[in-house]
Amino acid sequence: MYEGIVQDLIDELGRLPGVGPKGAQRIAFHILAADPADVARLAHALSEVKEKVRFCSICGNVTEEQTCRICRDPRRDQTILCVVEEPKDVVAIEKTREFRGRYHVLGGAISPIEGIGPDDLRIRELVARLADGTIVEVILATDPNLEGEATATYLARMISPLGVAVSRLASGLPVGGDLEYADEVTLGRAFEGRRRV
Amino acid sequence: MYEGIVQDLIDELGRLPGVGPKGAQRIAFHILAADPADVARLAHALSEVKEKVRFCSICGNVTEEQTCRICRDPRRDQTILCVVEEPKDVVAIEKTREFRGRYHVLGGAISPIEGIGPDDLRIRELVARLADGTIVEVILATDPNLEGEATATYLARMISPLGVAVSRLASGLPVGGDLEYADEVTLGRAFEGRRRV
Repeated sequence: MYEGIVQDLIDELGRLPGVGPKGAQRIAFHILAADPADVARLAHALSEVKEKVRFCSICGNVTEEQTCRICRDPRRDQTILCVVEEPKDVVAIEKTREFRGRYHVLGGAISPIEGIGPDDLRIRELVARLADGTIVEVILATDPNLEGEATATYLARMISPLGVAVSRLASGLPVGGDLEYADEVTLGRAFEGRRRV
Repeated sequence: MYEGIVQDLIDELGRLPGVGPKGAQRIAFHILAADPADVARLAHALSEVKEKVRFCSICGNVTEEQTCRICRDPRRDQTILCVVEEPKDVVAIEKTREFRGRYHVLGGAISPIEGIGPDDLRIRELVARLADGTIVEVILATDPNLEGEATATYLARMISPLGVAVSRLASGLPVGGDLEYADEVTLGRAFEGRRRV
């Protein structure tokens, strides 16, 4: 309905998650009326992120360096590893201030429906990190939903024989939800009450 | 919580209308995982719009040329003018295919609370368009809210003495809705504006 490039922008915005056609139109007209410097900053932020952000070579978290801030921090406990699905889960857990170990980001969860198997996740890298015996405890902090539970069960079976203590976040997280949406207290309690599996 | 440029992007996205902090985070991680070409296209669309889109010198609608597609179209009736608040209202009316005249975009509505007076809108341009007598009817299609009604009343008083027919869009029950859910003002308007069948 709009002329060329306005419609192009609406189409591009409409492809973002959580932005419907009406929302895309609203954002497009906000952009039309906005200060050019603000829009340039947004366009720049988009390009920068794609250009500079990569994944930490140790844990798989997002970073601008070879390794992420947490893996580089010598004050973090190297003997405890928390396994999560996505980088945003790292942020959620960091907010609780309950955990002082390091992370391992799988890049998703096992999901036969979506065709994601163990080989599509960073499980081989996880096993490699456990090889030298530095890590004595692994906390499985995958999402408390079907895929996350399946992934945790799979990892527990694989890691337990290596002589590493394996635990799962305690119930207290609402089942069927996403880890990133849990409130900080609930997530903190879940850390406190983790159980051996 | 995130490192530098990822947080920058989340901040920039969070400033868009209708995008909250969680939504901004979700979009940012979508961008991180997206095809670089898709993201480049979005960044380009943003810059293009700010660089190339301007306002039609006749009606105030958005366009990439000196004048917009509707003002350039010789098949559109030059004697009827529809006055709207925003360019998106033009799109909404065009979708109905009920109107074959031309438009005048005010760029907002009179709102003392927000400090928007008649001089901040394209009212002077509207009066200038009525001067040569080509336009014989003006349809006031401002929003059916307090500001839109006030603007319509103001314009009707200004235009009527010029010998131009002035009308206002009908208020009434939305088609496809339930009578019992209509608010009292709308239902009252529907009674006032009842038509013989």
